[in-house]
Amino acid sequence: MQNYRLTVQYDGTDFAGFQLQPNQPTIQGELERVLAVLAKAPIRIIGAGRTDSGVHAEGQVVSFKTDCLTVPIGRIPAAMNSLLPDTIRVLTAEYAPSDFHARYSALRKTYRYQVYHGPTADVFLRRFALWEQEPFNWAVVEQAASLLVGRHDFAGFASTGSSVRTTTRTMYRVEVDTSQRLKLLRFTADGFLYNMVRSIVGTLLEIGRGSREPESIVEILATCDRSAAGPTAPAVGLVLESVDYA
Amino acid sequence: MQNYRLTVQYDGTDFAGFQLQPNQPTIQGELERVLAVLAKAPIRIIGAGRTDSGVHAEGQVVSFKTDCLTVPIGRIPAAMNSLLPDTIRVLTAEYAPSDFHARYSALRKTYRYQVYHGPTADVFLRRFALWEQEPFNWAVVEQAASLLVGRHDFAGFASTGSSVRTTTRTMYRVEVDTSQRLKLLRFTADGFLYNMVRSIVGTLLEIGRGSREPESIVEILATCDRSAAGPTAPAVGLVLESVDYA
Repeated sequence: MQNYRLTVQYDGTDFAGFQLQPNQPTIQGELERVLAVLAKAPIRIIGAGRTDSGVHAEGQVVSFKTDCLTVPIGRIPAAMNSLLPDTIRVLTAEYAPSDFHARYSALRKTYRYQVYHGPTADVFLRRFALWEQEPFNWAVVEQAASLLVGRHDFAGFASTGSSVRTTTRTMYRVEVDTSQRLKLLRFTADGFLYNMVRSIVGTLLEIGRGSREPESIVEILATCDRSAAGPTAPAVGLVLESVDYA
Repeated sequence: MQNYRLTVQYDGTDFAGFQLQPNQPTIQGELERVLAVLAKAPIRIIGAGRTDSGVHAEGQVVSFKTDCLTVPIGRIPAAMNSLLPDTIRVLTAEYAPSDFHARYSALRKTYRYQVYHGPTADVFLRRFALWEQEPFNWAVVEQAASLLVGRHDFAGFASTGSSVRTTTRTMYRVEVDTSQRLKLLRFTADGFLYNMVRSIVGTLLEIGRGSREPESIVEILATCDRSAAGPTAPAVGLVLESVDYA
């Protein structure tokens, strides 16, 4: 069967996450519904990252196999977008080698967490950024964030409940971009544990507010103690920015 | 009575405009409802610009007079915001001289029109920008826009139906900012006629798409013929950015 690869953008606010769930609006559910209309056959898709309820994507990657799609490859985005809600857009569609798997072939993913720091919430950013009101020290957040780079056991930043073989991941890059009105925390790793970015951000936010020392990052990585980390930051600010393949 | 001045931000997507209308959600209606709760008395407000249905504001200015408000001035934004929908935020509140009138005291207003130019609509900008898909020449738009600067009779860019003494306005500044992914058309004038910005933008968009000559701006200004101008651009991209007072 022909293998396909899509790049997908979505505003996750009104969805119960990427993954298919009965009787709830999901990204996978919407994409599969629309593909079934176009292919006149059921199609099962694979997403690179199974983003949670309320989490957004700028460059989610999806793969699926079918021989039933007769729409020319260049017209797939427009054909799907005409049937999708305006909160989901297919940006690109291309043929993929038969061994391409959106999830297992991924080498690196980049997640971005968006924070709006100001005295009053911003109406234009309310669906896409966490509003942070407290006095906040971005320099100390940048310093603490740099401690995450490298190969570490990130168990202390993972919610339990997921079954993974190992909790060791390599964080290639952490960037704290405070140059714009919307502050960005960007994480690139070879993989992320369940709730890992949100646990890291929850901890970094406490550091920025001054209620936690930057060095506690080192301690959480060393002890793997989830209870030592900060709370899971809200989904609203999280965006799956891009996925890298070979 | 004490005169007050507020700065207000809103996402106009779900409102029938600023101005009070029976049985429809309006910005004025929401603000007056909340002020009545806090003052325990009805309060009538005045807005600097009566933005239309779907039009947004980053710096709308509102004034009102009352002696019934006991909330300390510094706490008015937070008190109002706790009762307002999250699509409206009061940014600042201050005491104003008794002769201050949000509308009549305004010297200049700045409106911004936001355009997202790309092959596929952007889900994060869908509520706040017009999606422009066609091949587009921003340089020629900038050239045409500069022809609007100065004191002109803008009748050719006004929808009929409003009763104004004169259709002559002074356009102080027109800026075409294409440095970011979101393209901005910014207009500063001593006043705007009904639908003036949207008529100008509709005309400039035709120029950018190549279906109209830049010089037609001069002709529309000279002839005051509305039928010579382009269509009214959609409300989605329009933002009342700021209002200047003496």
